[in-house]
Amino acid sequence: MSAYAALEKHFARRAGLQGALGILNWDSRTMMPAAATPARADQVAALEGAIHGALLDPSVADWLDRAESDASDLDDWQRANLAEMRREHLLATAVPADLVEANARDAARCEMVWRTAKAENDFALLLPHLQKVLNHQREIAAANAAVLNCGLYDALHELYEPGSRAADYGPVFDDYAAFLPGFLAEVEVVQAGEPKADPFEGPFPVEAQRALVQKLAGILGFQGRVDQSLHAFCGGATGDVRITTRLDPDNFFKSLKSGLHEAGHALYEMGRPAAWASQPVGQARGLGVHESQSLTFDMQVGRHPRFLAWLAPQLAEAFDREGDAWSAENLRRRFRRVDRTFIRVDADEVTYPAHVILRWRLEQALIEGRMELVDLPEAWNQGMRDLLGITPPDLAQGCLQDIHWPSGAWGYFPTYTLGAMMAAQLFQAASAAIPDLADQIGRGDFRDLVAWLGDNVHRWGRYLSARDILIRATGKPLDAGIFKAHLRARYL
Amino acid sequence: MSAYAALEKHFARRAGLQGALGILNWDSRTMMPAAATPARADQVAALEGAIHGALLDPSVADWLDRAESDASDLDDWQRANLAEMRREHLLATAVPADLVEANARDAARCEMVWRTAKAENDFALLLPHLQKVLNHQREIAAANAAVLNCGLYDALHELYEPGSRAADYGPVFDDYAAFLPGFLAEVEVVQAGEPKADPFEGPFPVEAQRALVQKLAGILGFQGRVDQSLHAFCGGATGDVRITTRLDPDNFFKSLKSGLHEAGHALYEMGRPAAWASQPVGQARGLGVHESQSLTFDMQVGRHPRFLAWLAPQLAEAFDREGDAWSAENLRRRFRRVDRTFIRVDADEVTYPAHVILRWRLEQALIEGRMELVDLPEAWNQGMRDLLGITPPDLAQGCLQDIHWPSGAWGYFPTYTLGAMMAAQLFQAASAAIPDLADQIGRGDFRDLVAWLGDNVHRWGRYLSARDILIRATGKPLDAGIFKAHLRARYL
Repeated sequence: MSAYAALEKHFARRAGLQGALGILNWDSRTMMPAAATPARADQVAALEGAIHGALLDPSVADWLDRAESDASDLDDWQRANLAEMRREHLLATAVPADLVEANARDAARCEMVWRTAKAENDFALLLPHLQKVLNHQREIAAANAAVLNCGLYDALHELYEPGSRAADYGPVFDDYAAFLPGFLAEVEVVQAGEPKADPFEGPFPVEAQRALVQKLAGILGFQGRVDQSLHAFCGGATGDVRITTRLDPDNFFKSLKSGLHEAGHALYEMGRPAAWASQPVGQARGLGVHESQSLTFDMQVGRHPRFLAWLAPQLAEAFDREGDAWSAENLRRRFRRVDRTFIRVDADEVTYPAHVILRWRLEQALIEGRMELVDLPEAWNQGMRDLLGITPPDLAQGCLQDIHWPSGAWGYFPTYTLGAMMAAQLFQAASAAIPDLADQIGRGDFRDLVAWLGDNVHRWGRYLSARDILIRATGKPLDAGIFKAHLRARYL
Repeated sequence: MSAYAALEKHFARRAGLQGALGILNWDSRTMMPAAATPARADQVAALEGAIHGALLDPSVADWLDRAESDASDLDDWQRANLAEMRREHLLATAVPADLVEANARDAARCEMVWRTAKAENDFALLLPHLQKVLNHQREIAAANAAVLNCGLYDALHELYEPGSRAADYGPVFDDYAAFLPGFLAEVEVVQAGEPKADPFEGPFPVEAQRALVQKLAGILGFQGRVDQSLHAFCGGATGDVRITTRLDPDNFFKSLKSGLHEAGHALYEMGRPAAWASQPVGQARGLGVHESQSLTFDMQVGRHPRFLAWLAPQLAEAFDREGDAWSAENLRRRFRRVDRTFIRVDADEVTYPAHVILRWRLEQALIEGRMELVDLPEAWNQGMRDLLGITPPDLAQGCLQDIHWPSGAWGYFPTYTLGAMMAAQLFQAASAAIPDLADQIGRGDFRDLVAWLGDNVHRWGRYLSARDILIRATGKPLDAGIFKAHLRARYL
């Protein structure tokens, strides 16, 4: 067997373990009794150890060297696959095992403390634990930066959006931050002249909500499981993609929004090339690209006036209601609402990037050592004032709101806004390629759009970089102008 | 770290992977969409490979040698744990990797073919595939026999009931086979003079059935998940034991029986020593002992007249019924029914061992090369005539009925009857130790019985052999006389 063939076999086995972990993590959040938490932690740790260990196996380094030294027989996809294997190996071996372990242990503890600190508005309680996590993250950043030859922050962001660099997207973010205050003021003037949406009176039976999500996801082409969980997610494994939704009997918008969002993720999981499903090159390009797929359905389609016109009678039927509140126009008003709010996950399409840019600036400063953790609450509040003109009334609505930092996910936040901007750019290109796309959406037909995304995004796996996917599909790299134009068209 | 401590750590990680596999297998049979079958096969193969591979790691052999050469610091449980590690290592290294792989692959294919062959009554279709599986099993038997220093059949049976040998239980089985014809004739005379049970008219809503199983299992002390599956099983993982039940809207007896049965398995899974949960010595002694725990509740308690008197009103309430059919006496008549039937899984307490003895005799002859596979259908039918005096009308009701042989589980069948006999023997001892046990059962109080089983069976894990568990708890090794006495008392 050639060294390359041995690598493919080895990575296919590793993919099997990753799939198993995906199912386990799905189970933890949907089916597992709470009492099983300690047992599950042992199972997950053992699986993660085996998945990580598969890269540390000395044969892997040897196979990589040999395969790279004679890559002449490989085709383009195999070569790209080999490069992805090398990248994963580089990152896995860059960080010493005891640092990986210390980070996992301290992040798990910090996440537990964070829950209390958030509930009790107590930053001092969190501080020593978060400091440990930050220290580990800085060490990991340094180790990765040495092998990637990049900056400290980029070296963490790489783990979520490979190849993406702050030097590229930073100016785009700063441009948006500069655009936002003026735009927000304009939107608020328009909004002041519009009536508020009529309320949608609950309750909305959770099974009807779940069935609606299953139906909508099914229309988009997703036939897998739809279950309930506290936070919606798309998970499971290649060949067994599963989505979940939040089910709040008083508010069906949460399940509607998360259903479209997770279905978008699921389509990306399902649409990648089956022949490469068990190989690194067949995986998702990164979380930014992933988010672009969920936001295509959640934001671009999901709030499109033609979509809402199609959706309105579906909602009325699902919940057996009638009246003005269930009109397309009222739905449109409900979705067009823009507010300056404290909580990222509740933010609208216009202000969401501000929440991300705030976190991105802060975590960059913390990782690069330009700021101390003890100064975070005040820096956070100052950032909110600068970006959105509001000051959080407490820490739970300020710097303690997100799980990311306590749980060790530093460098993750930019992917949300990268995804939102990519989604706008991709949707614009799809609209040009499919002249009657709006009509299709207006009759609930998403086949051409899903096929276009399949051709232009899904099927490339990691064969193309995120930047090249965008250039190939839309003719240019990430362009904040398209996102801003989209917002102007929708909100002004 | 001492060699023994290194082994404990290594086996604890392996137990984490085994737990993950348990959850995955539970998911496969309860939650997984059918389309995910190929992906699941890859995940399971990768996990099984990692679990098996953990034993083949060269450090394990080294640690075992070093720990055994200086076991003076170990306490009795540690020494027993070390012996179990050695046993697992011996069996894992006895069989070459390519044989393990070929067996897994061919058994998976054979199981698929078997489904068609059974549906179409076509032994010729199955024959070449089953022959491959049998050949692999014979090779595995030879490899195990060489290291265990035992016969070929014992070397396979060892994988399901460690330490159990045909020389010990064979005479007990033969004794029962000799006893059965006369006893059956006596039972049939008694039965002829009794009215048949009034029918229980369905439908019985499946959710009411599931809730009843959850309630009964809860009264026994099981608080975990109860889900639906095609075949009932107890699965999941240590610390997250889950049971399932069959739910047939027309027949609640299936869910009732399987609920008590699987709850008995679950209590054994939950009752073993927590301190040894991740170590070999903390695992179940074997499938025979496991079956004794399920049959204690399914057969000994579940058909006890005092239990049925307690159960009858619970059933009437669960399904909102009344009338003569729902009396304790009618329930007792329903459960006392003995029939000469073709299908093992539908067999009653009296004839079930005949189904097992038939399979045990045939698989012994096949493994030992005293019989050819092509002769199986006729040998099966002859065996049915000899043991039960009936001839199956077709192969689906004959030698094609069970999944065990096609799926590669040879040497498994005896555990059912070993379990039934152990259950009778343990229940007799428990009745002697708890003088008012019948009264307790009559008021639905199982705490003393469960505690007695915990003390006498569960808490020993693999520290004691099955034989020693029985001797310690009941004063003697397996004794068919106790099982026969139990049947005489119940059916004559």
